[in-house]
Amino acid sequence: MRVGVLGAGGRVGREVCRAVADAPDLELVAAVDPGMAGIDLRQVAGIDAPGLQVASTIDELVRAEAEVAVDFTVAPAALANLRWCAQHGVHAVVGTTGIPDEAVEELRGRFEQSSANCVLAANFAIGAALMTRFCELAAPFMDGVEIIELHHDGKRDAPSGTALQTAARVAAAREAAGLGWPPDPTEDLVLPGARGGRAPGGIRVHAVRLPGLVAHQEVVFGAVGQSLTIRHDAYDRSSFMPGVLLAVRQVASRPGLTLGLGPLLGF
Amino acid sequence: MRVGVLGAGGRVGREVCRAVADAPDLELVAAVDPGMAGIDLRQVAGIDAPGLQVASTIDELVRAEAEVAVDFTVAPAALANLRWCAQHGVHAVVGTTGIPDEAVEELRGRFEQSSANCVLAANFAIGAALMTRFCELAAPFMDGVEIIELHHDGKRDAPSGTALQTAARVAAAREAAGLGWPPDPTEDLVLPGARGGRAPGGIRVHAVRLPGLVAHQEVVFGAVGQSLTIRHDAYDRSSFMPGVLLAVRQVASRPGLTLGLGPLLGF
Amino acid sequence: MRVGVLGAGGRVGREVCRAVADAPDLELVAAVDPGMAGIDLRQVAGIDAPGLQVASTIDELVRAEAEVAVDFTVAPAALANLRWCAQHGVHAVVGTTGIPDEAVEELRGRFEQSSANCVLAANFAIGAALMTRFCELAAPFMDGVEIIELHHDGKRDAPSGTALQTAARVAAAREAAGLGWPPDPTEDLVLPGARGGRAPGGIRVHAVRLPGLVAHQEVVFGAVGQSLTIRHDAYDRSSFMPGVLLAVRQVASRPGLTLGLGPLLGF
Amino acid sequence: MRVGVLGAGGRVGREVCRAVADAPDLELVAAVDPGMAGIDLRQVAGIDAPGLQVASTIDELVRAEAEVAVDFTVAPAALANLRWCAQHGVHAVVGTTGIPDEAVEELRGRFEQSSANCVLAANFAIGAALMTRFCELAAPFMDGVEIIELHHDGKRDAPSGTALQTAARVAAAREAAGLGWPPDPTEDLVLPGARGGRAPGGIRVHAVRLPGLVAHQEVVFGAVGQSLTIRHDAYDRSSFMPGVLLAVRQVASRPGLTLGLGPLLGF
Repeated sequence: MRVGVLGAGGRVGREVCRAVADAPDLELVAAVDPGMAGIDLRQVAGIDAPGLQVASTIDELVRAEAEVAVDFTVAPAALANLRWCAQHGVHAVVGTTGIPDEAVEELRGRFEQSSANCVLAANFAIGAALMTRFCELAAPFMDGVEIIELHHDGKRDAPSGTALQTAARVAAAREAAGLGWPPDPTEDLVLPGARGGRAPGGIRVHAVRLPGLVAHQEVVFGAVGQSLTIRHDAYDRSSFMPGVLLAVRQVASRPGLTLGLGPLLGF
Repeated sequence: MRVGVLGAGGRVGREVCRAVADAPDLELVAAVDPGMAGIDLRQVAGIDAPGLQVASTIDELVRAEAEVAVDFTVAPAALANLRWCAQHGVHAVVGTTGIPDEAVEELRGRFEQSSANCVLAANFAIGAALMTRFCELAAPFMDGVEIIELHHDGKRDAPSGTALQTAARVAAAREAAGLGWPPDPTEDLVLPGARGGRAPGGIRVHAVRLPGLVAHQEVVFGAVGQSLTIRHDAYDRSSFMPGVLLAVRQVASRPGLTLGLGPLLGF
Repeated sequence: MRVGVLGAGGRVGREVCRAVADAPDLELVAAVDPGMAGIDLRQVAGIDAPGLQVASTIDELVRAEAEVAVDFTVAPAALANLRWCAQHGVHAVVGTTGIPDEAVEELRGRFEQSSANCVLAANFAIGAALMTRFCELAAPFMDGVEIIELHHDGKRDAPSGTALQTAARVAAAREAAGLGWPPDPTEDLVLPGARGGRAPGGIRVHAVRLPGLVAHQEVVFGAVGQSLTIRHDAYDRSSFMPGVLLAVRQVASRPGLTLGLGPLLGF
Repeated sequence: MRVGVLGAGGRVGREVCRAVADAPDLELVAAVDPGMAGIDLRQVAGIDAPGLQVASTIDELVRAEAEVAVDFTVAPAALANLRWCAQHGVHAVVGTTGIPDEAVEELRGRFEQSSANCVLAANFAIGAALMTRFCELAAPFMDGVEIIELHHDGKRDAPSGTALQTAARVAAAREAAGLGWPPDPTEDLVLPGARGGRAPGGIRVHAVRLPGLVAHQEVVFGAVGQSLTIRHDAYDRSSFMPGVLLAVRQVASRPGLTLGLGPLLGF
């Protein structure tokens, strides 16, 4: 399968280039990054794809006959890239975050009418997808739940997209089970904000930011006499790669737009 | 629903008596314990079931017209009790541990031919059942896994029954996914035993025993650049009660022998 | 040493009565509780102190010739009790929370002029005192720190007194080391409160409330490429007893008012 | 201060080169690595030290007038390097592991008679040094303790050197407090090794090896009704750098051989 990478010069993009180049069943045929055109990725990132240079425009995908494009760019660029992919019949695997809901719906329509498919996920770490799924499954059986996410101090948004998504899915599962909002006993709040932020659906979310940390999330469920904790730790951007490769290999057989890794994992 | 408790004088038994007496849809009609016959449970354990005394033999269940018996005794007593239940058409909910596999199979046969059913679980904490299930679901997607269980220093067996069961189910899930044994890199073992015990199926299990702890288990999965941790903490025997009551309410509609809480939780 | 317990009918008070009665070097000579006068503690709480009844007023301490009073009541009652102790020359060990700072200063003056001494601590769990001390020691060497406390859903104040005290001592240690406020990178706060409450001194504190939990605190420090986590779990009110007995045994040799368990542990 | 790095071509060595080059008060003047002589570190590792090349022999330190040598090599090479440093009056900061105790004693003698000093530590992460110290301080006050260390599946020795050192220091602290061996209640060991390895001094140590993990250690103390957990997570080799730079800056003022980071941190 012939793969092109959009945002190839970025930190995740380089990692994707490396992972694709290393996979025996995939071929890295195009690397696109406007700001780094002409760069020899082999030299700067040790990628073993002879002769590959970074091109500056997405049209490179046509020239290189790419079947799948992997996009790790920024939201506005990704939106333009994905419209292009739908139009040109190139499958897309997208890890770029911050694409607004209404743009996602527009893309759904475009890929439903295209010969190409799209897999879009906020977090390509398979362990994070399992965590979210397990939280959904546990929600109906446990009396209460709160989410703690912990990230490095370079992360400026809080809470993380993964935490918000977990909260949404847990809230939906609680509602489907007729559980309503988890009770909040706190009356005497000495420090404003100490009880965290309340996500839509009522789940409390706490965001920790510390130097040294990478990307971690802990979901704590409570019930009579017990607690159940589900935690994911990502130590490295490499944690995304197995999920990205899984999506690259499956995207051709998943018509339309697939949201999240869940369906690719069988749930 | 009329409920009798076997092992009513024990620590878990008393807690079961209390939970049944407190449940509006259940009635505590018999309390059996050979060593404590004639005791007023109301006085020693604050149980609100007027006139109830602890009887010494299981035949009390007949006199009291119990529909369900809950057994928290010891393995040999439980085996005799369960044969009696199958014979007398009284449903059984059993949390007694240490019943050998071949005795479980014998009981399966007896309950299949009885009008009564049986639910048998090593751990009635709903959170523990969720943990085990999630481990089974995660196993095919993660590269390695080890189990750490931590208990109070009064527990003499190691590892715990729950840890062994988790290991067995994770191993089965890995095998079904064609994963084989998790790799073990350790060559230079300075302290014998440091890498834990190897359960059937190859999973490493580590057992911690410390004063102050109650009953805890942590299952750690690893994959490229990440880990996924599923942890259950039981702080109190009360953690079993929701699971016991769930089983009491469902046992009449689950023909034959049901193993574990899983099927009652819908998986 | 002859010991009286104030608030003897409360949940912690009963536990203290039991611990004192069980200690070979201590004698439980008085149990005071206005609401429960005349109650036989032996019967309701299994306390082995023959003939001991619950009296309704603190004057019982005189009659019983108590040398030390242990107070687990509520703030206003404790304040009156402690004034009485200072006046009557009875040493005091106090675990009642919520006594205002200015009242503590008043008591310091009274005990400095009394033949009796006082040990006052918000948390008598020795492990919690160690946690707080270690946080203070770690603070100068780590770049950032946040506090997560987790309690059962019956706790109405947030954050906990222990969390606030930890935050204050960590902030003082950072300031003494010239570290200033920990940096906070968050700009885009999707949910108000998600980044927790900011304690005086700048430390972020997050409070989780869930059914089933007991009393837990986790302090996470971050520095280049690493984190250091110090966690205390109290599973039971019994966790206070070793600290209470330690204070009872040492109070006579600690002139004036001693704040916290630290000095009794040698730091 | 002029610094040379021995083992400059290795993974930690490169990181040290980078950290030294980036520190405004330090100058990277020599990089030694037999296997990589002539390599331009600037190109392969982005190190900004103009004109610096990797030399093949330690004599380069003389030519470059290095005041401090940092050694991250392998035990036999390090031993030769350190003898050379003691002889030539170059201070040494050593993170190479596996140097036998008797060789350490030999080096102690050599540096005591040299104008140069040596700081040798098995783990340069400041958080790990704090963890070990806190364990030592907690040991006398807690009833029991076990150590769990978790590392990536490329680590072949078990348990880790840090775990063994922690066990030794905790055992010494317990013995000094007259506590004797922690009790072990386990009688019925279903899986050999499940209770971990017993370090000299009696502490149980459990070693987990999983793909994806980096370097983690958790020390769990138990006492009546509570537990205290001290955990260090190293996510990256960068976690060593602050400790290495601290040692480089202090080594000139620490006569003889200093073992561990503790003394540099003030304990």
